[in-house]
Amino acid sequence: MSNPTIKEEALEYHKFPKAGKIEIRTTKSFKNKKDLSLAYTPGVAYACEEIKNNPQDAFLYTAKRNLVAVISNGTAVLGLGNIGALASKPVMEGKAVLFKEFAKVDAFDIEVNENDIDRFCEIVKAISPTFGGVNLEDIKAPECFAIEERLAEELDIPVMHDDQHGTAIITTAALINASEILNIKFEDMKIVIIGAGAAAIASANMYKELGVTNIVMFDSKGVLNKKRDDLNRYKKAFISDFQDMNEAFKDANMVLGLSKPNSFTKEHLALMSEEPIVFTLANPTPELFPEDVKSVRPNAIIATGRSDFNNQVNNVLGFPFIFRGALDVQALKINMSMKLAAANAIATLAKEPITDEIREIFGELEFGKEYIIPTPFDKRLMVEVSSAVAKSAFESGLTRVKNYNHEEYKESLRRSINI
Amino acid sequence: MSNPTIKEEALEYHKFPKAGKIEIRTTKSFKNKKDLSLAYTPGVAYACEEIKNNPQDAFLYTAKRNLVAVISNGTAVLGLGNIGALASKPVMEGKAVLFKEFAKVDAFDIEVNENDIDRFCEIVKAISPTFGGVNLEDIKAPECFAIEERLAEELDIPVMHDDQHGTAIITTAALINASEILNIKFEDMKIVIIGAGAAAIASANMYKELGVTNIVMFDSKGVLNKKRDDLNRYKKAFISDFQDMNEAFKDANMVLGLSKPNSFTKEHLALMSEEPIVFTLANPTPELFPEDVKSVRPNAIIATGRSDFNNQVNNVLGFPFIFRGALDVQALKINMSMKLAAANAIATLAKEPITDEIREIFGELEFGKEYIIPTPFDKRLMVEVSSAVAKSAFESGLTRVKNYNHEEYKESLRRSINI
Repeated sequence: MSNPTIKEEALEYHKFPKAGKIEIRTTKSFKNKKDLSLAYTPGVAYACEEIKNNPQDAFLYTAKRNLVAVISNGTAVLGLGNIGALASKPVMEGKAVLFKEFAKVDAFDIEVNENDIDRFCEIVKAISPTFGGVNLEDIKAPECFAIEERLAEELDIPVMHDDQHGTAIITTAALINASEILNIKFEDMKIVIIGAGAAAIASANMYKELGVTNIVMFDSKGVLNKKRDDLNRYKKAFISDFQDMNEAFKDANMVLGLSKPNSFTKEHLALMSEEPIVFTLANPTPELFPEDVKSVRPNAIIATGRSDFNNQVNNVLGFPFIFRGALDVQALKINMSMKLAAANAIATLAKEPITDEIREIFGELEFGKEYIIPTPFDKRLMVEVSSAVAKSAFESGLTRVKNYNHEEYKESLRRSINI
Repeated sequence: MSNPTIKEEALEYHKFPKAGKIEIRTTKSFKNKKDLSLAYTPGVAYACEEIKNNPQDAFLYTAKRNLVAVISNGTAVLGLGNIGALASKPVMEGKAVLFKEFAKVDAFDIEVNENDIDRFCEIVKAISPTFGGVNLEDIKAPECFAIEERLAEELDIPVMHDDQHGTAIITTAALINASEILNIKFEDMKIVIIGAGAAAIASANMYKELGVTNIVMFDSKGVLNKKRDDLNRYKKAFISDFQDMNEAFKDANMVLGLSKPNSFTKEHLALMSEEPIVFTLANPTPELFPEDVKSVRPNAIIATGRSDFNNQVNNVLGFPFIFRGALDVQALKINMSMKLAAANAIATLAKEPITDEIREIFGELEFGKEYIIPTPFDKRLMVEVSSAVAKSAFESGLTRVKNYNHEEYKESLRRSINI
């Protein structure tokens, strides 16, 4: 075909030369009877016995040390909705590809055909000895909150639902830099959030950690306020005194769109402060395109989820490196301090001059309104984000490793990617 | 260390240069923004939609096509016993290595921390959309029987508990050739089985399929007969009229040892036929060593589980190729016909002249008492066993593929391993 569509290209990519996007590879020599006797019987029994006597040795003698499960039940996949476990597999394999290619983390996808919270958690708990970390993915709200809470509590390996915290961490990084550029304090900010799903709730929770107090959130039925009697406990945490959208947008400093195209309009933007922060993250079509935003607020700081505009909010800036850091110190959890450390590291990296490699792909970029977060493919993300997360985990007392040298770890990360 | 022990070597093998023996690798190009848009959003959504509309397309667009789960709860690991899920991980990773190295099957180990039959089955069922096949491993009897039966019944992908059927298939192959060499009909044979665990029961069931009727089985408490009131239904299927070991061994044509060293003796062998078949498969120390067997029955046909004697009964002759064939025709089950086809293919291959490659490793070998089954590392196993299994699956009407050309498939297997 001379001019294949993206659909044709994507299906061909998945199909050829072998089905899917990942495979299992042997990492050790396996050439002869001797290797067979080490990898399998009788040699393997010694590794089993070491782990039996000291469970932590699983991190020494098995792939667990570098292994994250990407787990979904397929109830909220991309923009596709509840397509079920099996049909979600290409996305989960894709996530495994991102883990490996961006941060050298071995990730394996597990599609779980179970929507009940209790049973889903029991299944993930039962198979958790296999893994060094769990990345929950594309699980619908509000179930995702309870699932993540319970698994994080009950497992002894880090658990993170990326749809919640990935977006939260990247937008927090973007917000940190935007507020610095605009010279507004977090405690003086008024933030409107359109959407009240997994990412919205998690983002709002992180903004509160920064010191933001004035947050007004909307779901598909309108503003979350005291009149609403249909709110779950996660939404209830964000009820405000506002009555409608016009009141909410009045003099607001920021809007975070995690909804759908046109869920707010230029007229709403016209009510905001003169230099607002406008994150329109609906994908692939944002709530408002950057040119529409600029027609009303030419000095706005704008971010979208798309790679064809500046300031792309892409979870890949976060999750591969967060798990990289967590695995390397054998973290027990991913707590708020680690997530904030990741956000700050991402924000700080945007202030560094870009590398020649990035310049070649994205052109000239300099810290400012058009460049508040790093681009994907910025290799320094691994060094900065993973080390920030590892350090924070260690300082939180949430690691199995007993010693941690920050500079040595950063150096080892640099070496591993030849920078 | 100048002369490391096998323990030191094995631990070093597992540790260095990275923990464990397997990793996840990306199979598709992943170099730029374009690749990212195909492997992940937005392109990946097309693969999801195809699978949503036609679940069978999961075999076209995901790794499921070539992916086997090696699943254990660690209740009966090698000679180590019930060491639990986590400590079993090195063995299960080792199994994944064997799958890949011998038959290019991607296999991923899942350690399940659950011993209850119902809950274990629910867990495996829930995660089964991930995989194209399930290799159950090192699960203790009798639970393993119910688990395999239920999963084979309820899943739409092939399920096989290798501890049962792997040993059964290889010893059946060995028995087929031994009976031919000795010119004894199956229906005229008397077979003593020492041990009544997973492998023993499955072996006895396969021998019955060959036409053997006179089987006497022993567990740790003695012969299985009508006086016993402590037998589960799997053992009950093998009660006989014999009263003790001496009566059982009297004129027996074969003994299958799946027990422990000295669980029978030279004195018992002295009661057997003049040219008996003696399989002493306890590992690493056989029930009786070949030299002890020969001191009493110099013309015996002997097999052990060890690589340092001729006729090594090693499951690796079977499972990688059985799943290779089952995956390639997208089989729904592994039925008795497929297992017998595998055993016959293994038996037939032993009658072929050995290759130069095999001669280099094992020295000269010719079909006869000292060479009744092929050696591991015989590349032709994949061609012969996988194609026999695939053909049998297709003829059983148990495949998703609608067309099967036996010669073309064999040729493609030969090409894939360059023979």
